[in-house]
Amino acid sequence: MSHKKIIVIGGSAAGPKAASKARRMDEFADITMFQKAPELSMASCGYPYYVGGFFDDRNKLLCTPTGVVRDPKFFWSAKGIVAKVNTEVTRIDRKNKVVEYTNLKTGEKGSQPYDKLILATGSIPNMPPVPGNDLEGITTLQSMQDADFLRKIRDEGKIKKAVVIGGGLIGIETLEALNLAGIELTLVELLPQLLTFLDWKMAKLVENYLKTKANVITQNGVAEFVGENGKLTAVKLQNGTEIPCQLAVVAIGVRPNVKLAKEAGLEIGQLGGITTNEYMQTSDPDIYAAGDCCEVTNIITGKNVLAPFGDLANLQGRVAGENVIAGNVAKFPGTIQTGICKIFDYGVGITGLSETKAKEAGFDYERVLNASPDKPGFMNGKLLITKLVVDKKSRKILGAQCLGPGDVSKQLAIWATAIKGNLTVDDMVNADLPYAPPFSLAIDHSIATAHIMENKLKGVFNGISSVELKEKVDRGDDMFILDARGADEYEQMRLGIGETLIPIGKLRERLNELPKDKNKEIITFCKISLRGYEAAVLLKHHGYKNVKILEGGVAAWPFEREK
Amino acid sequence: MSHKKIIVIGGSAAGPKAASKARRMDEFADITMFQKAPELSMASCGYPYYVGGFFDDRNKLLCTPTGVVRDPKFFWSAKGIVAKVNTEVTRIDRKNKVVEYTNLKTGEKGSQPYDKLILATGSIPNMPPVPGNDLEGITTLQSMQDADFLRKIRDEGKIKKAVVIGGGLIGIETLEALNLAGIELTLVELLPQLLTFLDWKMAKLVENYLKTKANVITQNGVAEFVGENGKLTAVKLQNGTEIPCQLAVVAIGVRPNVKLAKEAGLEIGQLGGITTNEYMQTSDPDIYAAGDCCEVTNIITGKNVLAPFGDLANLQGRVAGENVIAGNVAKFPGTIQTGICKIFDYGVGITGLSETKAKEAGFDYERVLNASPDKPGFMNGKLLITKLVVDKKSRKILGAQCLGPGDVSKQLAIWATAIKGNLTVDDMVNADLPYAPPFSLAIDHSIATAHIMENKLKGVFNGISSVELKEKVDRGDDMFILDARGADEYEQMRLGIGETLIPIGKLRERLNELPKDKNKEIITFCKISLRGYEAAVLLKHHGYKNVKILEGGVAAWPFEREK
Repeated sequence: MSHKKIIVIGGSAAGPKAASKARRMDEFADITMFQKAPELSMASCGYPYYVGGFFDDRNKLLCTPTGVVRDPKFFWSAKGIVAKVNTEVTRIDRKNKVVEYTNLKTGEKGSQPYDKLILATGSIPNMPPVPGNDLEGITTLQSMQDADFLRKIRDEGKIKKAVVIGGGLIGIETLEALNLAGIELTLVELLPQLLTFLDWKMAKLVENYLKTKANVITQNGVAEFVGENGKLTAVKLQNGTEIPCQLAVVAIGVRPNVKLAKEAGLEIGQLGGITTNEYMQTSDPDIYAAGDCCEVTNIITGKNVLAPFGDLANLQGRVAGENVIAGNVAKFPGTIQTGICKIFDYGVGITGLSETKAKEAGFDYERVLNASPDKPGFMNGKLLITKLVVDKKSRKILGAQCLGPGDVSKQLAIWATAIKGNLTVDDMVNADLPYAPPFSLAIDHSIATAHIMENKLKGVFNGISSVELKEKVDRGDDMFILDARGADEYEQMRLGIGETLIPIGKLRERLNELPKDKNKEIITFCKISLRGYEAAVLLKHHGYKNVKILEGGVAAWPFEREK
Repeated sequence: MSHKKIIVIGGSAAGPKAASKARRMDEFADITMFQKAPELSMASCGYPYYVGGFFDDRNKLLCTPTGVVRDPKFFWSAKGIVAKVNTEVTRIDRKNKVVEYTNLKTGEKGSQPYDKLILATGSIPNMPPVPGNDLEGITTLQSMQDADFLRKIRDEGKIKKAVVIGGGLIGIETLEALNLAGIELTLVELLPQLLTFLDWKMAKLVENYLKTKANVITQNGVAEFVGENGKLTAVKLQNGTEIPCQLAVVAIGVRPNVKLAKEAGLEIGQLGGITTNEYMQTSDPDIYAAGDCCEVTNIITGKNVLAPFGDLANLQGRVAGENVIAGNVAKFPGTIQTGICKIFDYGVGITGLSETKAKEAGFDYERVLNASPDKPGFMNGKLLITKLVVDKKSRKILGAQCLGPGDVSKQLAIWATAIKGNLTVDDMVNADLPYAPPFSLAIDHSIATAHIMENKLKGVFNGISSVELKEKVDRGDDMFILDARGADEYEQMRLGIGETLIPIGKLRERLNELPKDKNKEIITFCKISLRGYEAAVLLKHHGYKNVKILEGGVAAWPFEREK
């Protein structure tokens, strides 16, 4: 009996995972992994932290938990996998089931047959098609070489000014890394908001925070990279602004690397990724694909999306690795597009659908905002702002966005699991989560968010978003805006939108200061709109018919404030 | 129309939550809250952190997020609730719907009618019925006065030696607090393990850690408190040992405070708590109950349990507060008994059923252990040890225990939500959780745990627990134990159970060193048993029929080691 011949193209995340799983499934299969880059199993999501100096040993990006670098020797001795690095697969001959490859160092060419092939060719970073984009000093942060280049800049400390182009996850992570290297930074984003997977207001809150660390320019793209003697000296924007800099990092997204797949005639989806079924099998039954090069199903909408995330690449690789040996036994169900990033002291992320995406997908949804701490004040609880979106009819959780200095990761993990479990608001209202003061409030932030949503769906919490309120204020709508905080809080900082201060503790005795007209629109708020909620409830009981609570209160107000 | 009269008995957690919710439901109800203690809304779960000096301002245990102490004045002005502190309700006259009360300071007596009554009378700490238990220097940590007493001891710094009696959550939290005060501590537990909600081995790992901080004595109870001139001088144990000390903190559990309910003839359950339906309504339709004084349904087993947790008290209070105004509209579905505590640098907790509880409840279960980091090594990932229990047939998650210096809270929150959502192992295998290196591994610890469980249920991961292996070793079973770690790791520390070192990278070329008899029992392991797993898979492919992996590897070995 001859051994099964497995070839894996790609040695970053999905590839090694697939190869290793295949090995565990079949000790005697011949498994070869081709990798164009010199390194294998790079923890590429860790590049920004290497560049930023969170650690100094480059090998930590490449090694096992016990410190062994995952090089070809390791793959052979520990896993019996032949890993060919610096080797580009140039063609897949599906008819003869052979791949052709070239060693990029020696120029040597060769070919190798397969029974099953796994494509894990990853993605290619986009580059703005503008003059000067080949100048020295322009880079992406996609490869180990990019990371080495930027880390060297950090260590040398010569560059003083840099521009990051693109306000997505990688752009912002790179911004933090370079900021920690002491470089003065400008972030440029073509669209009206950063982190486009978030709703506008949530992104705006991130932007406000980011502006305390760097210059942030939105709605403005790169028109030209300006240089002297082949070296970058400035970035020129579409509005004519020129930003002097010696370094520009481009992070305007990636596209699936499907050249080989396309040339081999495999089916490519509308979004440009390789099409697979739930077994990660392409249109050729002997070829599987995993990771950034694939399209993947969004479980909530049922539509295909591009989701170039390291965790999904690993999970898909595992499925592909199992199926090439055992037949189609393992399924990858799709994604809910959970993502998170660290931005200095903030965590920021999403799971499931944003409001924008829920609207696009045609859901009849309700949304709510909760701004409150992750832990008690006496345990130094830190603020979290969560925006929750649910389906009105089924009351199922559609998505949650969360940001702030608090424990964002736990919140998103809870909501991601809730979405996976098809949980409704009502399930979450009485969730039984781990409580002790070092870890959470007695009523966890996620449960409190569900409580507000429950009240909103019941009609007892009539919320208004800060965006809507700002529009009303700008329009000059006739309304009474009630700040229910304490006088000391009001003195320290106020919204400055024509509000009247009546502390919640004085409200019952000062009801006469409210409009006589019980139909007049009243907006209530406080720091996080808990007292604002109590004020609104109180006023409604006293006959006011049009009372709304500013969701998230002062804490989630994304616009200018007074003081 | 006369206003609804609501009385709440108890002003700690469930009581104030119920009263506040009732107020938001009905602005015009007359709401009175009786509280025996001088304080209201005490964050009693925070007492150990006040004692331990995590913060110094006592008022932080009593105030709102904006720093307002929740005293009777606050309850009246902010919420329109009459809070009578230092006032004990002495009798419930159900026939006339009146409560009788006594002001403990003035001796003044009174009575007050109700339409609806909510009992939130909490729990009473148990005290060992042994001689000397009324000596000065013996306390519990149940009331604000207890916290004040212990905090004073910390601040004075006179006491050098103390004994904590009881190895449950509060005992261990108090141990940490007093350790931070520089006191030499001994923990005494009557049962063979600490934290009895955990399985033995998990508790043993906690005990091993705790022993680096304090003396720990298990399977030994208090026989007598020894004193001089009315003051504690020693704790005498059942085995005769006498431990000199000036302070003893008793934390051997609590029992529901049901005196009033019992005397009023309300139905009390077999476990000694007030019986309620899912609306938190007692056997008297006009009387509701919430918090530690109640029994509550375990959602997984359907059986009643006592679950004196602050989070459940709040959630139950909210339900009771809603229902006394609106009729039975809100339901409390029960608990999965999620609990967590901080133990110095460890988090430790459980959600759902332990193996012991799953066995008791008659489930046909599978269990697995995963020891692996919470984050990548380059982000200073810390170890987590998770024990997962699932139902074999339905493959549903029954319970998860987790401990270690890693992010235990997030792990438990994920599993708690998974249990709530009736999720199976298969759902968790491809969970889409928030991944970025500052927050998790590419394959989150929880997902990796699900992978191991999936492999175990498939029969490709044949695990053996450390407890079983130790028994086999002690019995002298004939087996070959293979340590698949590196030589350097082996030099640093080894189990010392007759194992042979063959690093995973050498295994394929050193197969001849293994037993000739392919039926011989082989046990493989490594640091966390990932390489152990690979070794086992390899050996099985090479014909070995009886290969088992030591679950959790060296990291989760609870017994003595060599070096």
